[in-house]
Amino acid sequence: MILLQETLKSIEGLYRDKEETAIKRLDSLAKPLGALGTLEEISAKMVGITGKMENRIDKKNIIVMCGDNGVCEEGVSSAPQITDILAKNVVRGIMGISVLSKSANSELTVVDIGIKDDINVPGIINRKVAYGTKNMVKEPAMTREEAIRAIEIGIEIVDNLAREGYEILGTGELGIGNTTSSAAVVSVLSSIDSDMIVGKGVGLTEEQYKNKKRVVKEAINLNNPSKDDVIDVISKVGGLDIAGLCGCYLGAAKNRIPIVIDGFISSAAALCAYKLNPLAREYMFTSHLSAEPGSIYIMNELGLKPILNLNMRLGEGVGCPFAFNIIQGSLDIMKNMGTFEEALIVNDFLVDIR
Amino acid sequence: MILLQETLKSIEGLYRDKEETAIKRLDSLAKPLGALGTLEEISAKMVGITGKMENRIDKKNIIVMCGDNGVCEEGVSSAPQITDILAKNVVRGIMGISVLSKSANSELTVVDIGIKDDINVPGIINRKVAYGTKNMVKEPAMTREEAIRAIEIGIEIVDNLAREGYEILGTGELGIGNTTSSAAVVSVLSSIDSDMIVGKGVGLTEEQYKNKKRVVKEAINLNNPSKDDVIDVISKVGGLDIAGLCGCYLGAAKNRIPIVIDGFISSAAALCAYKLNPLAREYMFTSHLSAEPGSIYIMNELGLKPILNLNMRLGEGVGCPFAFNIIQGSLDIMKNMGTFEEALIVNDFLVDIR
Repeated sequence: MILLQETLKSIEGLYRDKEETAIKRLDSLAKPLGALGTLEEISAKMVGITGKMENRIDKKNIIVMCGDNGVCEEGVSSAPQITDILAKNVVRGIMGISVLSKSANSELTVVDIGIKDDINVPGIINRKVAYGTKNMVKEPAMTREEAIRAIEIGIEIVDNLAREGYEILGTGELGIGNTTSSAAVVSVLSSIDSDMIVGKGVGLTEEQYKNKKRVVKEAINLNNPSKDDVIDVISKVGGLDIAGLCGCYLGAAKNRIPIVIDGFISSAAALCAYKLNPLAREYMFTSHLSAEPGSIYIMNELGLKPILNLNMRLGEGVGCPFAFNIIQGSLDIMKNMGTFEEALIVNDFLVDIR
Repeated sequence: MILLQETLKSIEGLYRDKEETAIKRLDSLAKPLGALGTLEEISAKMVGITGKMENRIDKKNIIVMCGDNGVCEEGVSSAPQITDILAKNVVRGIMGISVLSKSANSELTVVDIGIKDDINVPGIINRKVAYGTKNMVKEPAMTREEAIRAIEIGIEIVDNLAREGYEILGTGELGIGNTTSSAAVVSVLSSIDSDMIVGKGVGLTEEQYKNKKRVVKEAINLNNPSKDDVIDVISKVGGLDIAGLCGCYLGAAKNRIPIVIDGFISSAAALCAYKLNPLAREYMFTSHLSAEPGSIYIMNELGLKPILNLNMRLGEGVGCPFAFNIIQGSLDIMKNMGTFEEALIVNDFLVDIR
């Protein structure tokens, strides 16, 4: 609890003065004012985060939090609980996030924060808080202490990555059943009827979809989490992966490292971090808009706009590598574009084209 | 005219059987069916284009068509006619597209297809059809022969790049006043009132914006181009850059090379190519949705969805480098992801998770 409290207290906002200087520099570049749109916003925000006018993201890391969900008993997922197998395959290099992170020169940090089986595979970090959560339709998913512990593990993971010099982080997860827990968390935190938030996950039939909606509603009714107490919400109807990622966002904000949101579960965790400390949002960057219906609510609540529209619903962190490329482009703009003055003295004369 | 006619005749559709095989392969990969969304569509389409299951886009090239527009006399742009200076600065490496193409390891082909001044700068290919177009509010922007010549130059440029082994192309342009000509072209081809299509370009005042709407309407009324004759539309109210890019799309389809659409002008040219031969669309990939209001109409008409949401309004081709990265990711997925079978025999047992 001390680490979480200290982290929440230590988070500060962006360096606004540096961000202003960055915006001035962007306005001086050889393009109409604001014509590079979101690229300019990203570029300026990076300066606000680090305080440096020129930023690098050569060292990239995507954190994949892996945990099981007891609510799978209720038949909310079309897949059996093979979170352990998926995690092993990520490390083997054959899953979507393995391929795409490599494609973008990013490393991966795969964390067992609550897989229901013992995993002893090199490359998977064992920070298991519990052997999966409990079935939230029957009891709270975890204790308050477990939720806090999982959040603190996220913070510790990021503290370590910060020490190792990583310059940008991504978030991903593996956890069969975690669109169900995420829907419950988002519904409570946003006060939106859970039927509006619950999505079909991957490949549910209409019957299974109805059942999933019922499960989320029942879990919320049974546990009655307090909307204003994020830890209460996570512990009663959340998941260990969500808690761990929530900690990652807080850790990134504390360490002033940019962090990229992936899909629905990752967004739900971002919402939790934001509710714990609104300044955490300042360090977040979006990637894609997940096909899960709840994602758009979260983005609105966070006041963030996804930059990719790829209609993916995989999780794992697959949106992050593409966002890294776009962020890299925005940094190159700041560093390598010429100014108006440089551009217009080509023929030894100066024109004001604005 | 012969080259254009031959090109239009020689364009064939995708290899549907290969595309089907690609979709089967994608369905066999270790992820829920379709969970990688648009990435999977891109990956399969690439197979349909080349006929090869594994594709590379190591050699990339963005074609930047540069031309001036006589309609600038009417005060439709906030910038003076400095297309020549902009083109020189692209080659110097200090413009947005210079920086972003380098960032994505893409080369540039800068073509003077109609700049109003003589340009003798190494790196700018001189294929000048005219010293800019005429003022379309007073007379047709160009002759029918000029329009055809400009389209054929686009085809020739792509023929050359195909011979040099380029595996993917991007489209960009420089031409002060070309959102005005593009709006006119799109309005006529789509039968949508031009007031709905004309955008503020970059930094117009309300007064200038009103004037721009008036200019487009007058140009269409005066020239009365035939909606069903694309060449007539381009020659009367289009531009040399639009014509050149239209040729690039046709050339790409003929040579079975994927080609990426950038912003509004590039989209308008894509629409022209599609209207000349609907099969041309099969070789097109989207990048971002331009902030110009007409862009969404074009995408709907083409049945394509932009994959990036960056609120840019620069032109030059700046959306293409980011699209290249996403397409690269989709190719890596196809090549490097494991199948379900590979994924689930980790522990010597096989589970059906679908």
